[in-house]
Amino acid sequence: MTQQPIVLINAFEVPDGQDDDFLDRWQRAADALRSQPGYLSTRLHRSLAPDADFRFVNVARWESPESFRAATSAPGFRQVAMPYRFHPALYRVVREDG
Amino acid sequence: MTQQPIVLINAFEVPDGQDDDFLDRWQRAADALRSQPGYLSTRLHRSLAPDADFRFVNVARWESPESFRAATSAPGFRQVAMPYRFHPALYRVVREDG
Repeated sequence: MTQQPIVLINAFEVPDGQDDDFLDRWQRAADALRSQPGYLSTRLHRSLAPDADFRFVNVARWESPESFRAATSAPGFRQVAMPYRFHPALYRVVREDG
Repeated sequence: MTQQPIVLINAFEVPDGQDDDFLDRWQRAADALRSQPGYLSTRLHRSLAPDADFRFVNVARWESPESFRAATSAPGFRQVAMPYRFHPALYRVVREDG
């Protein structure tokens, strides 16, 4: 049985002027996740406006909720401090066009 | 000169039990946008957890910020009432893997 991949969407509140610090931390977290079982892809977005509610939004695909949860429980990921508010959740695509 | 498409990401706060009402409104808004110049694609995500901060997140691609702003100023789109809090912003992809 194959399942549709699940999508992690994580919206980050990063104050103006903190982009470089955030990007460095995000890259270390992404590097720790990339080698984990079930990882498929990731795409980090930065807002055109510096004062958007969510300056950065990450959209990543994983094979299953279980693989994502196992990967984010691993020490390599948990050691990266992320001192910004963020809103992660797992999603499935329910409407698609184009 | 060709430009990388821009990405609209819109995170919606939809209370538990309101999915059907939201989906109906979202679909009408999407139908109004689809025929506008510069529209490329859209993908609506629903959270696995009913109580996620953002129950729905829309990720759409447009040719330019100007085409998106013109489309969302058109009457067909503006006539769809959306009585939920939402957080839209325009983005570009800054990191990509996989």
